[in-house]
Amino acid sequence: MVQGSGDWMQVTYLVRASTGDIAARAEALTVEQAVELPRAVAARDPWVAAHMLGRVERIEPAGDGVHRVTIGQPLATAAGDPAQLLNVLYGNSSLQPDVVLADVELPDTAFDWLPGPRVGIEGLRAIAGVTGRPLLATALKPMGLRPAQLAALCATFARAGLDLVKDDHGLADHPFCPFEARVEACLRAMEDAARDTGRPALYVPNLIGSPDRVRRQLAFARRAGVRAVMLSPMVSGLPTLAELAGLADGLPIVAHPAFGGVLRALEPALFGKLFRWFGADAVIYPHAGGRFSYSLETCAALAAELRRPYPRVRPAFPAPAGGIKAEWVGELLKFYGPDCILLIGGSLYEAGDALFERTRQVVERLARAAPMEFVK
Amino acid sequence: MVQGSGDWMQVTYLVRASTGDIAARAEALTVEQAVELPRAVAARDPWVAAHMLGRVERIEPAGDGVHRVTIGQPLATAAGDPAQLLNVLYGNSSLQPDVVLADVELPDTAFDWLPGPRVGIEGLRAIAGVTGRPLLATALKPMGLRPAQLAALCATFARAGLDLVKDDHGLADHPFCPFEARVEACLRAMEDAARDTGRPALYVPNLIGSPDRVRRQLAFARRAGVRAVMLSPMVSGLPTLAELAGLADGLPIVAHPAFGGVLRALEPALFGKLFRWFGADAVIYPHAGGRFSYSLETCAALAAELRRPYPRVRPAFPAPAGGIKAEWVGELLKFYGPDCILLIGGSLYEAGDALFERTRQVVERLARAAPMEFVK
Repeated sequence: MVQGSGDWMQVTYLVRASTGDIAARAEALTVEQAVELPRAVAARDPWVAAHMLGRVERIEPAGDGVHRVTIGQPLATAAGDPAQLLNVLYGNSSLQPDVVLADVELPDTAFDWLPGPRVGIEGLRAIAGVTGRPLLATALKPMGLRPAQLAALCATFARAGLDLVKDDHGLADHPFCPFEARVEACLRAMEDAARDTGRPALYVPNLIGSPDRVRRQLAFARRAGVRAVMLSPMVSGLPTLAELAGLADGLPIVAHPAFGGVLRALEPALFGKLFRWFGADAVIYPHAGGRFSYSLETCAALAAELRRPYPRVRPAFPAPAGGIKAEWVGELLKFYGPDCILLIGGSLYEAGDALFERTRQVVERLARAAPMEFVK
Repeated sequence: MVQGSGDWMQVTYLVRASTGDIAARAEALTVEQAVELPRAVAARDPWVAAHMLGRVERIEPAGDGVHRVTIGQPLATAAGDPAQLLNVLYGNSSLQPDVVLADVELPDTAFDWLPGPRVGIEGLRAIAGVTGRPLLATALKPMGLRPAQLAALCATFARAGLDLVKDDHGLADHPFCPFEARVEACLRAMEDAARDTGRPALYVPNLIGSPDRVRRQLAFARRAGVRAVMLSPMVSGLPTLAELAGLADGLPIVAHPAFGGVLRALEPALFGKLFRWFGADAVIYPHAGGRFSYSLETCAALAAELRRPYPRVRPAFPAPAGGIKAEWVGELLKFYGPDCILLIGGSLYEAGDALFERTRQVVERLARAAPMEFVK
């Protein structure tokens, strides 16, 4: 098979780079998203060269120092998996501040494994019994009301003629308003209202929690008679959305954008705290001077955060990565001290056939550097 | 119970606002993250007033038109759930470009339900057999190599003395390199190398996919003898990380930051395409003119994207929200046409005791506006 014989996706990025630099930057972006090695290194394997390598398809000036770069990537890189698709689209490049994901086009075959909406506009219209006009919806709030109070709001809204009443996305499984009690109370209120109004309004509960909890919530909601649910995919993870959407006994899903802007968190907060708090034993992040723009100060703060003592939380390993050079080992050791994982990729592979030797050198360089005094 | 008697979390944001405006902005941010109603409206319920309302604790100038705002939120708002914690920290505010999540402090009781690292630095050191110096690690790449080739790389790296060899985060369950075959081949290579070198290096496979798939990968890896795994929490969703970290039969987890910068995607791409492709039947997003900064142009593009015909994907409902006024109904109908869900929250609640009436007005306003001609 020759390159180009399979299906391709088109990914467009806005890239901040000068006219002189943009071609090289576009090429770097292309290989970053799948093979993560320079083209010549990756192409050492002929099958990789034929099937895994993307190509820059268009570069257009977009004004103000920005270019619009369209890259073709083999669909095969996505492995027929929604989660892996995210990696290929915007896995590493999302961490590069000169890059914005601007657009994606997929071949139809991608929908062999991407579920898409279960019922879409037509199906939701049928469920809500509304044609020819927008559905009118509201949210149950504030957080803190108990099921009977939310049910009373449901009754009010349904009787007033709304088509859809959803949980606020902050309504979780709080002890003062448990998911199951809320769903039952709100559904009952909707049914009571429907007997009077003659038309059943939709109550849409918010699913939130770990994937397992969300699945149990969905199952309960379905048994109780719920006809659509809400989920915040950036909170739960887009793959959870895809899984729920693909269940044989699922329900239509309303997606909420909460947490969708999470990049605009400082790195020590997101990677240093949240990742650890959520269970990471080690956290990989781009070290200063590599392919990303983190400063040394950011890296130090992130590492310090991961290792900060807590009474009830184990420290986690900082794992700096992202373009670390083999020859930096001594410096990195000084910078981070011993409690880190040094993740060195490309700088080893560049050695080609001398991979063993280069690796060995790094090991030895570290061995030489390691037995030293650290100021912790 | 009086306000302040429970546990509190401290959330710090960088907020771009003038000295004159910052106090009001900080208050708006405080209520946005939990009750999502103005304080006076939320406090109509005394229990809510006592238990759910946050408070602005500190406002400090941070230079360049930015203030550092620290907000106290009752820990109870997080419902003892890792996913819900994300909502309270940065659910809606992540979508506001004048706000950056800068820091979070949790009371120790939060770790009743946040798992934290299973083994942490000490445990990973014990597994790797490395003390007093950094672990040295690399990644298997490029995507496209088959299991035998990756195993050969493992052997090379292990023999060269690396402590840890992880899958590149783009190594998924590709047909040309299935997860199970890869894990078995790489582990075998590590074991072979260990017989020669006398010290076992760690092979860390990448878990990726839907939550169900990830759980099956973890179970297989564990049975095969893997001693640590990798996950990209922003790809899989932080709640998936928390779930895996909390499993009785889990493994230590190395977290990869892929997809961590997802905000810097244009809204039509993220919410208009990905959310739909991953299964959303309706997508809520902030309409122009509300509490967020989306332009009318962005909203129109997003809605158009959600409804764009595909051969194999149903259209999904645009659900504009985020501060829509009851009196905009006619205008919104003109703007979006009938295929949308108009999500109106605060503008109804502001009516207080006249909630029914206000809602009714909106319903009627829509009924009057609806039977009209649309240019689709």
